[in-house]
Amino acid sequence: MIRAAVFAAGQVYRLARVRRLVGRPDLVICADAGLRHARALGLRPDLLLGDFDSLPSELLQEARAEGVPILQVPVEKDKTDSEIALEEAVRRGAGEVILVGASGTRLDHTLANVHLLPASPVPVTMTDGRSIARILRGGESLTVPHETGAFLSLVPLTPTASGVTVRGVHWSLHGATLRWGETLGISNRIVDREAHVSVEEGCLLVVQAWD
Amino acid sequence: MIRAAVFAAGQVYRLARVRRLVGRPDLVICADAGLRHARALGLRPDLLLGDFDSLPSELLQEARAEGVPILQVPVEKDKTDSEIALEEAVRRGAGEVILVGASGTRLDHTLANVHLLPASPVPVTMTDGRSIARILRGGESLTVPHETGAFLSLVPLTPTASGVTVRGVHWSLHGATLRWGETLGISNRIVDREAHVSVEEGCLLVVQAWD
Repeated sequence: MIRAAVFAAGQVYRLARVRRLVGRPDLVICADAGLRHARALGLRPDLLLGDFDSLPSELLQEARAEGVPILQVPVEKDKTDSEIALEEAVRRGAGEVILVGASGTRLDHTLANVHLLPASPVPVTMTDGRSIARILRGGESLTVPHETGAFLSLVPLTPTASGVTVRGVHWSLHGATLRWGETLGISNRIVDREAHVSVEEGCLLVVQAWD
Repeated sequence: MIRAAVFAAGQVYRLARVRRLVGRPDLVICADAGLRHARALGLRPDLLLGDFDSLPSELLQEARAEGVPILQVPVEKDKTDSEIALEEAVRRGAGEVILVGASGTRLDHTLANVHLLPASPVPVTMTDGRSIARILRGGESLTVPHETGAFLSLVPLTPTASGVTVRGVHWSLHGATLRWGETLGISNRIVDREAHVSVEEGCLLVVQAWD
């Protein structure tokens, strides 16, 4: 299966953790200034795309000189660079994607990027090195490995998420309903080797995060 | 009407813009290290609450010495400090709230804080100085004043938001449907003195943001 890494132009807080999560991907796609994050990991992009409004021109020229394939998209477009990059990864056969640097700058981009996860036809893990986020749709379950020092948070992306069960954690839930505006699911702790999370209806963002 | 400012422990990027938006609130509530942001604006809290896991102890002692009312909440609780602070503002009669510093650190907190907006019984404006976010529920409309250099983004918080109309902008929409994973609503521009946004069904986050 093709594992793709997509680098967006937002924040990366802990590069060492990102490096471990990204590993050696089969496909590397950079959206605009996301190139900086791939460079920091020593990865050569298979594709650099964007309107290049946020990428220093010397970085763009350097990539061009190295023969990195470059797709310039118009400034006036219906999609963000991140959405196009993720689509391109899927079009090239990615069976799973790690999306890096997709949060932490503009709030509108952060939210739009989070909402790429439930809409994606392939599993997407989103990380900035300080958080690792995955999506869980109604009827699905997920095993989350213990990570030292991490909180485990369950955020309902839909107005309600019901039938939420989580085991292996300090505060277990059994068929609970999580709602917007209620922060009950935030800052749990995995106490076993792994946690098991499931949801019957609605959509959860499952986030491991570090203070 | 009582205007409240609630300061959370996340990021503030542009203090001058936050200062202008916050103005002189009738009520100032600080959640934990959100105290730093209130201090930066020269505001005296009417209440400082939290489990104080993120606040330097000298700041806590200073506030205590000044006679700031302090509510210590347990570390093991069902709600985040931000949720408790917003509830407390509403309980004390706030008719509108500006929520400062509620994004930009941990992704789980950012999302949980965004979801406080649609759940709140009073209008909440969320800002980090780089973005200004408000909520628009089905059947509602909103006038957004032009802000120099700002993008206007419409993010569907529900899986779909339909009957979305926006006028006064570069890319108008008329009864459009916005969906998770489609970033059509991101980075519009207000071209008139103000923009008018309405939505028939679903819930939109209306964000003004600066690069």
